[in-house]
Amino acid sequence: MTETPFQPAARFAGQRQDVWLAHPHDTDHMTIINDAAANSPVQPVVHMGQGFFGYNPPQFVLDAARDALGRVECNQYSPTKGRPRLKQAIASSFSPTLGRELNPETEVVITTGANEGILCAFMAFLEPGDEVIVFEPFFDQYISNIEMPGGKVRYVPMKPPIDGATRTSSAAEWNIDFQELENSISSRTKMIVINTPHNPVGKILSSAELDRIGELAIKHDLLILSDEVYQSLFYVPFTSIAARSPDLWARTLTVGSAGKAFYATGWRIGYLIGPENLIKYVTAAHMRICYSSVSPLQEAVAVAFEQANQMGFWDKSRNEMKSKIERFCEVFDEMGIPYSIPEGGYFVMGNFTKLRIPDHYTFPESVASRPRDFKLAWFLIQEIGLAAIPPTEFYTDLNAHLAENYLRFAICKNDEVLDMAKDRLRGLRAFMQ
Amino acid sequence: MTETPFQPAARFAGQRQDVWLAHPHDTDHMTIINDAAANSPVQPVVHMGQGFFGYNPPQFVLDAARDALGRVECNQYSPTKGRPRLKQAIASSFSPTLGRELNPETEVVITTGANEGILCAFMAFLEPGDEVIVFEPFFDQYISNIEMPGGKVRYVPMKPPIDGATRTSSAAEWNIDFQELENSISSRTKMIVINTPHNPVGKILSSAELDRIGELAIKHDLLILSDEVYQSLFYVPFTSIAARSPDLWARTLTVGSAGKAFYATGWRIGYLIGPENLIKYVTAAHMRICYSSVSPLQEAVAVAFEQANQMGFWDKSRNEMKSKIERFCEVFDEMGIPYSIPEGGYFVMGNFTKLRIPDHYTFPESVASRPRDFKLAWFLIQEIGLAAIPPTEFYTDLNAHLAENYLRFAICKNDEVLDMAKDRLRGLRAFMQ
Repeated sequence: MTETPFQPAARFAGQRQDVWLAHPHDTDHMTIINDAAANSPVQPVVHMGQGFFGYNPPQFVLDAARDALGRVECNQYSPTKGRPRLKQAIASSFSPTLGRELNPETEVVITTGANEGILCAFMAFLEPGDEVIVFEPFFDQYISNIEMPGGKVRYVPMKPPIDGATRTSSAAEWNIDFQELENSISSRTKMIVINTPHNPVGKILSSAELDRIGELAIKHDLLILSDEVYQSLFYVPFTSIAARSPDLWARTLTVGSAGKAFYATGWRIGYLIGPENLIKYVTAAHMRICYSSVSPLQEAVAVAFEQANQMGFWDKSRNEMKSKIERFCEVFDEMGIPYSIPEGGYFVMGNFTKLRIPDHYTFPESVASRPRDFKLAWFLIQEIGLAAIPPTEFYTDLNAHLAENYLRFAICKNDEVLDMAKDRLRGLRAFMQ
Repeated sequence: MTETPFQPAARFAGQRQDVWLAHPHDTDHMTIINDAAANSPVQPVVHMGQGFFGYNPPQFVLDAARDALGRVECNQYSPTKGRPRLKQAIASSFSPTLGRELNPETEVVITTGANEGILCAFMAFLEPGDEVIVFEPFFDQYISNIEMPGGKVRYVPMKPPIDGATRTSSAAEWNIDFQELENSISSRTKMIVINTPHNPVGKILSSAELDRIGELAIKHDLLILSDEVYQSLFYVPFTSIAARSPDLWARTLTVGSAGKAFYATGWRIGYLIGPENLIKYVTAAHMRICYSSVSPLQEAVAVAFEQANQMGFWDKSRNEMKSKIERFCEVFDEMGIPYSIPEGGYFVMGNFTKLRIPDHYTFPESVASRPRDFKLAWFLIQEIGLAAIPPTEFYTDLNAHLAENYLRFAICKNDEVLDMAKDRLRGLRAFMQ
């Protein structure tokens, strides 16, 4: 790396970040995983790491995109808030789940993926020194997006079941300690971030949990950012926190992702829903960050939301993903590898406490210095050519021990890929205690 | 507007911004113009305001987009730096104009439109209090994008020819006072922004001007952000500042826009080109702002750059736009309205000093309180149903007088629209001195 005569801003010059700057297409853990995969003696490596889909958006959505490309206005700037047809389609789709008639003009904004939408929310409301509560494990972009406007993260760990090493259990058993949550609130706390269905845990927050979080938010006058990007994939009843009461609606920004909903993570279309007096500032941030989001694919996503019900897409999508999860998890049952049964989303956390890594097994420095899950991930890639994600990447060092025996598997792949992965996992038998 | 119980961050809560927050799809001047157009007694209004195209991207580019939508990997996340094929196509296209063999892996990054790319550059390098030099008139997003990371703008006006009210002249005659430019440099100056071909002036910075700017940048150790989004539309020789010398390459980020190049402002694909030790920090910012940019359209733009030469697209595009400019400006010649003949881009600045607005003509408060160009724009919409942009929106109050007799016309419209606009302008005869 050449030395720069031009000092970058501190926000992007940190030690930790420089690890992924060496391969800026990926984050730290992704760099390690991808490098390991590229150099594994077992090829081709089966990838169940990053959460992109191994298949295409449904045909009716692709058709809509192709159609939009033929229309002049769909190839030019969209309004900053989003294309009117898409805002309307989203308002119509989410009015039932949010339990109110959404105003498409004032209560919806389209962003460049959920990611930029989340950044817009933090940029809109955080002053330097404001604190934001984030549960561990977290989506890693939250952290830098909170820190960009000068916010500070207060972490509250979700805790896996204490017998997670020996028993398969519901993702619901990952626990929030509400006393710890309340203790983390200070006079500078401005916002709390929740994620349901949760990545990577697969937990859907119950109504009771949402209400306890909501009570604290009201008591301490906090905004809530509810990241619900996996909202269409629920295998137990799902509720949005904004639907729990008018008081909670009034302080909540609900985040969704068309890429996650319609198998198109590369389309970069997300949306935030909330009351006008919050959405207008998110819109102001979005205007200055991206000006507007991609037009022809916004139009396609509008058609997708309009037609999803009549095409039976939501039911099909949910059923298919649930089948994929069951299909894949058979091998865990077969091998006696305990796991968290997802309540939603498309990630499964397997517990590899029983996997014995041979003594004197050598790891590269970037892996040796990290918790056991990095070593597990490396070991799987080297020995059986299967890539998964070490979840302690989504924890602070203090709490990393909670997840150091888990690996995250992305299930949103073709059945043949899942079957190959199962075959690979069977190759671990010799190493299981 | 309901009062918010949740105070937004100061960066998005300003008085001025609240004007456009009322219509957050547009900026202040766009709100005024669009409201006026919607309420004009002359309908339909002919729109030559915002710089989006009135026609589609070329067929070979649309075909490439439709093809990309059929491929699984083109619908999922792209690498943060951009799709390898697009980085390669851009490196190949710009190696000749930048006079060096560009490395697609380290010297190119794809962003979510040029706009987000420009924000990434400021976020990557500006610490609070760092100063950035911007020429007036400026692209309005520069200002908020510099201020977002805490930067301060130092303005240097470009001055129209002193006889611009009476004589049609080349856009080259808009002048930079180099002494004033050097005086604006302080110990906190970190960066200078140039825009060539220039919006709205249409000026292409000459080699001599680039060298004088370059000398100052080297002398004071400044970064250069060279916004060249209209680069493919030049009617006099065009040179990139980064091509002037290795020292200038080393300190320059060159910004381009696929949306501007291929008539697709809604596709949101921009790119920054520069040395590795600058690009890597822009990439770090882009990763945290958008994670990655829209995949299928990146693939289509790769094909567009690969095939543009053999399709004769660049020549055709330049010739067509030049013809449109000539076609439209005939009416100015006919009417004795002086204008700046663009050297590049698709905007024309007409000088309406000779237009006499009747005494006691009434304007709404939002117009009455602004410089004369706002009144001219309002008058044209009301009287002849033709919308143009008041350029003092792109000046500080101090220097607004320099452009208060000009209006900006976007020429990137169908010939029938241009002909209609000419007819409308003929309706001003009664008001010309």
